[in-house]
Amino acid sequence: MSQAARPNQAFFTPARLEAFSDGVIAIAITLLIIELHLPEIEAGLSVWNSLQQILPNIAAFLISFMTIGVMWVNHHNLFKVIRHVDHTALVLNALLLLMITFVNFPTAVLGELLLTDEFGNAMIFYTGTFAVTAAMYSVLWRYAAYKHRLLGENPEPSVVRTISRDYLFGLLAYLSAFAISFISPMLALIVTFGLAVFFVLPSRRV
Amino acid sequence: MSQAARPNQAFFTPARLEAFSDGVIAIAITLLIIELHLPEIEAGLSVWNSLQQILPNIAAFLISFMTIGVMWVNHHNLFKVIRHVDHTALVLNALLLLMITFVNFPTAVLGELLLTDEFGNAMIFYTGTFAVTAAMYSVLWRYAAYKHRLLGENPEPSVVRTISRDYLFGLLAYLSAFAISFISPMLALIVTFGLAVFFVLPSRRV
Amino acid sequence: MSQAARPNQAFFTPARLEAFSDGVIAIAITLLIIELHLPEIEAGLSVWNSLQQILPNIAAFLISFMTIGVMWVNHHNLFKVIRHVDHTALVLNALLLLMITFVNFPTAVLGELLLTDEFGNAMIFYTGTFAVTAAMYSVLWRYAAYKHRLLGENPEPSVVRTISRDYLFGLLAYLSAFAISFISPMLALIVTFGLAVFFVLPSRRV
Amino acid sequence: MSQAARPNQAFFTPARLEAFSDGVIAIAITLLIIELHLPEIEAGLSVWNSLQQILPNIAAFLISFMTIGVMWVNHHNLFKVIRHVDHTALVLNALLLLMITFVNFPTAVLGELLLTDEFGNAMIFYTGTFAVTAAMYSVLWRYAAYKHRLLGENPEPSVVRTISRDYLFGLLAYLSAFAISFISPMLALIVTFGLAVFFVLPSRRV
Repeated sequence: MSQAARPNQAFFTPARLEAFSDGVIAIAITLLIIELHLPEIEAGLSVWNSLQQILPNIAAFLISFMTIGVMWVNHHNLFKVIRHVDHTALVLNALLLLMITFVNFPTAVLGELLLTDEFGNAMIFYTGTFAVTAAMYSVLWRYAAYKHRLLGENPEPSVVRTISRDYLFGLLAYLSAFAISFISPMLALIVTFGLAVFFVLPSRRV
Repeated sequence: MSQAARPNQAFFTPARLEAFSDGVIAIAITLLIIELHLPEIEAGLSVWNSLQQILPNIAAFLISFMTIGVMWVNHHNLFKVIRHVDHTALVLNALLLLMITFVNFPTAVLGELLLTDEFGNAMIFYTGTFAVTAAMYSVLWRYAAYKHRLLGENPEPSVVRTISRDYLFGLLAYLSAFAISFISPMLALIVTFGLAVFFVLPSRRV
Repeated sequence: MSQAARPNQAFFTPARLEAFSDGVIAIAITLLIIELHLPEIEAGLSVWNSLQQILPNIAAFLISFMTIGVMWVNHHNLFKVIRHVDHTALVLNALLLLMITFVNFPTAVLGELLLTDEFGNAMIFYTGTFAVTAAMYSVLWRYAAYKHRLLGENPEPSVVRTISRDYLFGLLAYLSAFAISFISPMLALIVTFGLAVFFVLPSRRV
Repeated sequence: MSQAARPNQAFFTPARLEAFSDGVIAIAITLLIIELHLPEIEAGLSVWNSLQQILPNIAAFLISFMTIGVMWVNHHNLFKVIRHVDHTALVLNALLLLMITFVNFPTAVLGELLLTDEFGNAMIFYTGTFAVTAAMYSVLWRYAAYKHRLLGENPEPSVVRTISRDYLFGLLAYLSAFAISFISPMLALIVTFGLAVFFVLPSRRV
């Protein structure tokens, strides 16, 4: 690092922003585990009965872990194309991190309520959170890509098109899951799980 | 990294200190989420009634998330100008991190008490924490900027002036919020929220 | 970092993946501590009686800390040989991080149940988690090493052989501990502890 | 990073080990805050009465935060002189991180028991943890410095002497606090606080 006192016009480099974002995402994904607690084991029952009782929580944990994992890959891909960061991008990125961190809460709510009458509302909350997060990704990307505002001088058109298409697809997919959760929470859960698996499939580009 | 055993006169580089600080701030901002818990859902009520009950906690979470986010940007801007670190700066920075970490506690207290008789005291505690944190920023900056002690050889005068003015403004703003919390806790809450939004506004320099 | 907009064919570098993994592992290992809680001290008893009561939790904490520590060293060694990352490796690595994060849960379960009738089942769950984690390591390594898919052009044959052998040994060792836990949970606990110590022994290569 | 497949003789660089250690220390110091909880506010009492009730917890939080902060500076100073890492150093460093992480637990215990009959035992546990941690620092340093095993070719003799002397002093200081805790827990608390302040004093070398 140069010790000279140059003017600081561009205060934030994408690398720095990404490192901080990585930290927040790594913590958010790891904190998911602390919501898993074994319920009191009643007389005559075993660990397996207890684990069975919290299967909904484990399912919610797994889906959220996978989904935040996919979000991390998306975030990284984004910042491979973004070459500059301005204040608006900083703020949009912060809102994205807010949503990713927030995922912990609807995950806990879903785990708690998956087998109750409130399953439907929990799924609306859960898929709604993912839909807002997907929307935040799209907003950040649209802002960055508009007239190549934050991209390099000569971005690969195919890369830009691919990201635009993928993000639109992701947003529509989570909006669909959100809509489905009003009709059939179980179907919405399966769709959300399926989306996580789909985005994780090796056939997709990294 | 050179393997040679040169004398270590300047043990800490600003880059290293900033990386550690980034880690602490990333954890502090992410830990805010674990204070959000859905209360037991009573018979005949839904998830939405429960969420409504913890709206104060969600509001406190959001304001603190935004405020710590702004603190992170401030911290980063600071260390773009600071070129050397001495022991005093190290200690002042540690006190700053202590305050940023501490924000988790008054946030939880505020969320718990926002709708109770103790709202006023909770706001005094909450805004007081932010005022002390803003003061710590000013102390660290004044120490670094005094006779350009920790700045580079030729710092941009306009950058130095801008930081000095911004920090003074921030300190006065949070002192005002603190003072207001004695008179009207609700107004103080609105001011604190407004300050977070204001500091987040894209019109500000990054 | 170059500001030019080159095509991003290889989106993920091993260095970046390792940094993110390090973050997750560092958090997973540190979170182990928050499951340690002193039970209410009853009248006439002291801190030491209370600590004695949670000795099982402390033992589980220590074994898990050592085991995750060893996993970190393994992960690092792996990524010293792996020179490229493709999507499958990314996903396999994510599953590995999922397992390492998950260790927190069976550790808490084991600590809770070590002195109860459910000790056996808790050990099956605990050693089973380690066995699956060891299997994930092997799968990731086999995938990377197959026809030197993700290794450099000319990997040291002895390094490749050593990792292959070590991982096979680790997998067999944890499968054995898993099998033993069905017969004698106490022996399985001793074996798991012994394995952690063995892998930590200075005689092993770094 | 070179993509060539050179032999990996020295798998761990001090830089990498330090980055991982920084992560663990940053998390350990930040997790301290989640043990601070406001007790239920009884009728007729205010936030201030509640805060007063947990003053012991706040005191324990502050002392531990300062002490872990000092440990971080020590750790960093150590790795400015250590130029190589072997397996033993890796293991000793892991034990050090284990102790630093563990500090969270006696801190919570002390906060809980500071105003009870068990204050003495809690202080023995608390100071004992710091004494063991200081001992771990000394062991790691002695191992690294013995015949300049892990130092560079030509370490500054004055730096080596200074670290040796400082660590010996630190160890003796915490052993004294440990001994005092058997006689007067309150004096031991004051000494522990004083040591944290002393090590933080700007007069000390960074």
